[in-house]
Amino acid sequence: MTLDPDFNLYNPQPLLIVISGPSGVGKDTVLQRMKERELPFHFVVTATTRPKRENEVHGKDYLFVSKDEFARMIEANELLEYAIVYNDYKGIPKQQVREALASGKDVIMRIDVQGAATVRKLAQEALLIFLTTTSEEEMVNRLKARKSENSEGLALRIATARQELKRIEEFDYVVVNSDFHLDETVDTLVAIIQAEHHRVSPRKVNL
Amino acid sequence: MTLDPDFNLYNPQPLLIVISGPSGVGKDTVLQRMKERELPFHFVVTATTRPKRENEVHGKDYLFVSKDEFARMIEANELLEYAIVYNDYKGIPKQQVREALASGKDVIMRIDVQGAATVRKLAQEALLIFLTTTSEEEMVNRLKARKSENSEGLALRIATARQELKRIEEFDYVVVNSDFHLDETVDTLVAIIQAEHHRVSPRKVNL
Repeated sequence: MTLDPDFNLYNPQPLLIVISGPSGVGKDTVLQRMKERELPFHFVVTATTRPKRENEVHGKDYLFVSKDEFARMIEANELLEYAIVYNDYKGIPKQQVREALASGKDVIMRIDVQGAATVRKLAQEALLIFLTTTSEEEMVNRLKARKSENSEGLALRIATARQELKRIEEFDYVVVNSDFHLDETVDTLVAIIQAEHHRVSPRKVNL
Repeated sequence: MTLDPDFNLYNPQPLLIVISGPSGVGKDTVLQRMKERELPFHFVVTATTRPKRENEVHGKDYLFVSKDEFARMIEANELLEYAIVYNDYKGIPKQQVREALASGKDVIMRIDVQGAATVRKLAQEALLIFLTTTSEEEMVNRLKARKSENSEGLALRIATARQELKRIEEFDYVVVNSDFHLDETVDTLVAIIQAEHHRVSPRKVNL
């Protein structure tokens, strides 16, 4: 499927799109696959205080900033939303989102479930999409398969993910992501975005 | 794009889909192209009192019924909606729609703008899609190009279409149909239907 920005968008008002869901549902993998397609979206580059890994590029994968700089950004109200993730901070630079929207591009952000709720408060008309697995069991299995944590950390992740699954009602759309059908997941996300551009009542985002 | 009925539909609740719009926007052509794709939809077979043309098949293109039979259907409240079109009656058999929905299929109906409003009253949660042209001028040109009527009939059609264009607000989605981009129109319609199956709040149709 192709999405031509110049054709057949009844309502060109750019969308503020949040892709969220519990850990283990594959948000990063889905976003990565979306980026690989040549779609006319702006993918938000998140600011983070964690150290840059060798294969990562500043300004592309993340904006790598010091803890002092991150503190300054919080104080100056420059972040749309931020969270502590395993002792490191992650946040969405507000100005980047504003500029992308002003240029007419749909903006896509990957945020955790708590952060998605924050965005909803700030921008009622944001488009909130919840990624989930086919079952709670599959989500638990995926978290276990990561093996990146000791069992204590794992138990906490599973408990958190279970709580987050209960917050589907706060979202606009739900998409089931299966590892074996990643392209179908992306197709569905693109279909939702395309459909939203044809709503008679457009979502007008003010930030 | 493929739409697999067994995969990735978060909410399998079948949809009651009305495709409408002024005369001249190409509703029939769009529906024809949709039917040519192997999509898991039920396309409503409309009842009509007009004579069967040679290339038409009863029960496939239309249900050809006598005026007496049509009168009986009206009296027995068997029609979801009906209208007089150039001295002939056309109507949507309610039982056919109910059975298709009960089988789990999305139901697609082609109805004029007035009829779409009637369906909305009967089924608040119907999905109403308005087909339109890129401009009012293009619509007028298309009506003129049909040459199937004398100029009096044409003026009436144009006036009606102009009035109908003002009723977009009563619909959920708007799709611009261009003769040269028929497949994109169908892609967009399919995207809307797919997206609707991922809404957190499903449309529950009771008829």
